Amino acid sequence: MAFQQILEFRTHGRSSLEITTQVADVVAAAGIVTGLAHVFVQHTSCSLMSTENADPDVRRDLETVFGRLAPDGDPAYRHDLEGDDDMAAHARSVLSDVGLSVPIGQGRLLLGTWQGLFLWEHRSSSHSRRVVVTVIG
Amino acid sequence: MAFQQILEFRTHGRSSLEITTQVADVVAAAGIVTGLAHVFVQHTSCSLMSTENADPDVRRDLETVFGRLAPDGDPAYRHDLEGDDDMAAHARSVLSDVGLSVPIGQGRLLLGTWQGLFLWEHRSSSHSRRVVVTVIG
Amino acid sequence: MAFQQILEFRTHGRSSLEITTQVADVVAAAGIVTGLAHVFVQHTSCSLMSTENADPDVRRDLETVFGRLAPDGDPAYRHDLEGDDDMAAHARSVLSDVGLSVPIGQGRLLLGTWQGLFLWEHRSSSHSRRVVVTVIG
Repeated sequence: MAFQQILEFRTHGRSSLEITTQVADVVAAAGIVTGLAHVFVQHTSCSLMSTENADPDVRRDLETVFGRLAPDGDPAYRHDLEGDDDMAAHARSVLSDVGLSVPIGQGRLLLGTWQGLFLWEHRSSSHSRRVVVTVIG
Repeated sequence: MAFQQILEFRTHGRSSLEITTQVADVVAAAGIVTGLAHVFVQHTSCSLMSTENADPDVRRDLETVFGRLAPDGDPAYRHDLEGDDDMAAHARSVLSDVGLSVPIGQGRLLLGTWQGLFLWEHRSSSHSRRVVVTVIG
Repeated sequence: MAFQQILEFRTHGRSSLEITTQVADVVAAAGIVTGLAHVFVQHTSCSLMSTENADPDVRRDLETVFGRLAPDGDPAYRHDLEGDDDMAAHARSVLSDVGLSVPIGQGRLLLGTWQGLFLWEHRSSSHSRRVVVTVIG
């Protein structure tokens, strides 16, 4: 059995936005007891990640780490049509991931105590992002 | 319901090869309306990624970024039996990923407009790569 | 159809632990012929990866690579409550991944010849880690 819903989020520049509640709502609506919730962004310059949702400094530090791994405006980049953050955003998207699956047990997301799901915007400007949630069980 | 097919691709050294059409063909053959298409490489020195398929410079720049994160012939590597690109290929494979899932809706892959699926060869020489596509719904 | 089991592993500081056999046992117990095995850690400072299980130097070199990408005790980190390895562990977890799926065919994990599944501890001290295995088919 499969259930699917497309969510839309407005992002506001480079930062991560917790979407755990919205994904959990789709899982509740699906009514599937045991299975998987798959989350996917239909984009190549943002991504999804699961990380700690207690201390916001974790996600601040992740910006620091990823900003070094794929720096904005690197002179080696050829793809820079949309600005200094363009290619860096694609690289950060590949380094994290455009999709993730979370197990469902007893009808709920089986996340750890401090584990949240985040939509991670890698562009500097505001974007509308489509997130497809598919529940299988 | 589950449907599975193993595809084989010949790669030609370090570069990425779009396989969106081949994966879409397996999804069409599966006849599953809503679900997931999971793609997996049975190797540890190549990977799969979803990224922009419009401007080929994106994938060229990804080579630059990944070439820095896991340089060939790093003197710190111990695993170099098969050459300078051996350990770098394993590291690049872990940094990207050996598997990815794409949602299926109305019987088709729900990819974004400029989103493609790529088999990414990280070795310098030509290889035959097995890609397992599993469709669940 | 979905089958699920939660495994618990004791880790002993930063290193990777092969769990292929334990995951294969869950797949055997599930009795699903064609499908997916999804593995997920309910934590944000360890991860899962698929890499070569023949030469242990591969995983030793991966420690070297990841230790550079997210160094311990970086003065730029703000999240350091639990020590020098705290934020590095979160970053390494996002760079690799907290979940992975492996195809199942003829009732078995369809892994390549030298491909293993590893639980990767990124903290310096010993931890008990929960791994949720969900089999869908």
